[in-house]
Amino acid sequence: MDKLNEDALNLHRKNHGKLEIKAKVSIENKHDLSLAYTPGVGYVSSEIGKNKELARELTLKSNSVAIVSDGSAILGLGNLGPEAAIPVMEGKAVLFKRFANIDGFPICLATQNTEEIIKTIKYIAPVFGGINLEDIAAPRCFEIERRLREELSIPVMHDDQHGTAVVVLAGLINAIKVAGLKKEEAKVVVSGAGAAGVAVVKMILAFGFSDIIVCDSQGTLNEKRTDLENEKKELSMTTNPRGVTGTLADAIIGADIFIGVSRAGVLTEEMVRSMGEKPIIFAMANPVPEIMPDIAKRAGAFIVATGRSDFPNQVNNVIAFPGIFRGALDNRIKQFKGEMFLKAAEKLASLVKNPGLENILPTVFDRGVSEAVADAIRE
Amino acid sequence: MDKLNEDALNLHRKNHGKLEIKAKVSIENKHDLSLAYTPGVGYVSSEIGKNKELARELTLKSNSVAIVSDGSAILGLGNLGPEAAIPVMEGKAVLFKRFANIDGFPICLATQNTEEIIKTIKYIAPVFGGINLEDIAAPRCFEIERRLREELSIPVMHDDQHGTAVVVLAGLINAIKVAGLKKEEAKVVVSGAGAAGVAVVKMILAFGFSDIIVCDSQGTLNEKRTDLENEKKELSMTTNPRGVTGTLADAIIGADIFIGVSRAGVLTEEMVRSMGEKPIIFAMANPVPEIMPDIAKRAGAFIVATGRSDFPNQVNNVIAFPGIFRGALDNRIKQFKGEMFLKAAEKLASLVKNPGLENILPTVFDRGVSEAVADAIRE
Repeated sequence: MDKLNEDALNLHRKNHGKLEIKAKVSIENKHDLSLAYTPGVGYVSSEIGKNKELARELTLKSNSVAIVSDGSAILGLGNLGPEAAIPVMEGKAVLFKRFANIDGFPICLATQNTEEIIKTIKYIAPVFGGINLEDIAAPRCFEIERRLREELSIPVMHDDQHGTAVVVLAGLINAIKVAGLKKEEAKVVVSGAGAAGVAVVKMILAFGFSDIIVCDSQGTLNEKRTDLENEKKELSMTTNPRGVTGTLADAIIGADIFIGVSRAGVLTEEMVRSMGEKPIIFAMANPVPEIMPDIAKRAGAFIVATGRSDFPNQVNNVIAFPGIFRGALDNRIKQFKGEMFLKAAEKLASLVKNPGLENILPTVFDRGVSEAVADAIRE
Repeated sequence: MDKLNEDALNLHRKNHGKLEIKAKVSIENKHDLSLAYTPGVGYVSSEIGKNKELARELTLKSNSVAIVSDGSAILGLGNLGPEAAIPVMEGKAVLFKRFANIDGFPICLATQNTEEIIKTIKYIAPVFGGINLEDIAAPRCFEIERRLREELSIPVMHDDQHGTAVVVLAGLINAIKVAGLKKEEAKVVVSGAGAAGVAVVKMILAFGFSDIIVCDSQGTLNEKRTDLENEKKELSMTTNPRGVTGTLADAIIGADIFIGVSRAGVLTEEMVRSMGEKPIIFAMANPVPEIMPDIAKRAGAFIVATGRSDFPNQVNNVIAFPGIFRGALDNRIKQFKGEMFLKAAEKLASLVKNPGLENILPTVFDRGVSEAVADAIRE
C-alpha cells in the first residue's frame, strides 16, 4: 500500500471520519435547557411557523449547505455507491468549513433514480441554506440540477460542473494573457462531454471564446452526428463553427488550447506537436491527466495545468465553491445564475497579480480567495 | 412577551441557531489536503466501496443520528411545518451532544406523506448510524417506525413514544415502591392514546402491570367500541380486563395510578378524590399538565409527576434518548427491541438510591445517567 493511501486510511480510522456536530450554546443547568429546548424553543418554533423565512435567522439554515451525492461518479473511481461517497463529502464539508466557515453536511443517497433524487432533495431542503451536488453521473446530473433550480428557492450548484468551469475559465483568462492570445480568435479543443465538459464549454462560450470543438469518445461533436441527445446535441449546435469532423487527433491540429476533462493519456505527444505556436494544455483527468506535464512540455507545450497538487497550475475547485456558497448565503440569493459564475472566474483570475507560465491561478491557501469569490457572487 | 420566550428568541437570533459543523482534522497545507481530500480520500472510498460496513469505522456514520421530523406534531404546538421544527430538532441535537457525545443532525421534511417519509429516510440512511424520529403525528408515526425497523439495518426509534415510555416506567417503578403498591395489583388509568400513550401502555404491560384502562377523547377503550382502528383497536383488546365503559371520570374511580399524555386540565380535583388510597399522578401534558400539582395534592394525591422543570419529579426524555442511542451506536445494534427499553427503564429507576415523594427519577444533570442507560441497552 502506497504511503499516502496508508496515511489517509489511518487518519480516517483514528478520527472515525472527519466531521462532528458542535453545539453553539452550552447546557449546564435547567435554565439553559429551558432556553435551548423546552419550553423556550416552543416560542421560537411558533414564530417560524408564522413566517418560515425566519428560519434563515434563527436556525442553522442561516449557514448550512447539503453536500449531496448518489455515489454514482465518485472522483475518478466511478459508481461505488453512497457509503463510499461519505469520505469525499465529509472532505468537502471540511473544506467548506475551513475556507468559508460554512456548515456543510454530507447527504449520500441510497438511490440513483433521477426523480427520486430530486424529490428527496426537495424534502430535506428546509434545513439547508444551499445545495451542493457532487459526484453524480452525467447526464442525470443535468436534469437534477435544472429541476432543483426551478423548484427550490435556495441556491443549487453541481460543483463538478460549475466549480470546475469557474476555475478553468479563471486559469484560461490568465493563460491567454501570458500567451498573448485573444479569446475571440483562440482555437479551443475540449476533450470530454460529461458534467465538467458541458459546463466548461457553456461557460467559455458565455465568456466570449467562439472557436470551440468538443470531442467525446466518438470524435468531434458536429451537426452530422445522429447519436447525440440533450446536452451533447445542444453543444453540437453551439460549438464547432468550422464543422470539423473526425477524431481528437484531427480536431487538435492547429489548436491553441486543449482542455481535458476526460481520461488518462488521451492527449499524445504527437497531438501536442500538431497544435499552434504556444499550446496551452489543461489536462484535468484525475488522478492521471490526459498527458503528463513533462511530456507535454517536451512536445512544446507553453503552459500546462492539471488537477494535481504536485505540479504547478493546479486546477482545484476548492478555490471556487466555498466562496460561491459564502456569497450566496450572505446575500440570501434565491438561485445561482450564469453571470455569477462568470464574475467569480474573472475575480479569481484577477487575484493573480503577475500571471506567468507556472502561475495562472491563486491557491486555496492564498489569503482572501473565498472572500473575493463571495464578493463576486454578490455583485 | 414573556421573559423566557424573549430570552429564547434572543439566544437563537444571536447564534443563528444552535449547531455548527466542526472539522476533526486540520487543513493547513497541501499535504493535509491530500489526506483529508483528494487524492488520499479516494483510497478510503475505494475500501468502503469493497465493504460498506467500513463506513462505520471510517466516517461520521460511526457516531451520527438523524433527528427526523415532518413538523406535524411539534411539542404541544401542532402542525407548524418543517421549518418550525428546526429549532426543536437542533435542540435535540444539542442534547445528544451534551449528554452522550453523539453527532445528531436535524432532518426536517417537506412532506407529511407516510410512504414519502419512509422512502426519504431510507434514501438518506447511509450517512447515519441511527434514526431518531421526532414530533411526527399519530397514527402515521407508528407505521413509519415499524416499516423503517423492518427495512433498515440501523436502529430507529420514535422518541415521543419510546423515550417517553422508558422514563414513565422508570418513574412508575419508584413511585409504586414508595407507595407500597404491586404492579400486578395496581389499577392504572391512562389518558391519551396517541404516540406516547400507546407506547407507555405497551411498555407497562410488558413490565407486568395488568389492570390498565386507556381513555381517549371518547372514553375508555373497550371491546364494545366500534370506532377503533390499528393501535387503539389493539389496545382495546390487550387492556381493560374488567371491561369498564364510560368516561375518564368513570374509569378513574378507585384507580391507584393516573398517567396523562393527553391535554391540559382533563383530570379534575373530584376525579383525584375518587381514586384509591395513595393516588399516583403522572400529568405530562405540555406545557400545562392534566392537573396542576398543587391542586392534585390538595385533592389527596400522594405522588405527582409532570413534564415541567419547575415542579419536582420531572418526566423528561432527555434522561433516556441520549443513552439509548449511545448504547446502540457503541454496540452496533442493528435494531431496537422492546426488552432494551425495559432494561433502560429499570436501570434509570435504580439510579435513584432513596426514592421519595419528590424524588422518583434521576435528573439529566446527575452524573452517569446516559452511561448507565447505554449499559442497559448493551445488556
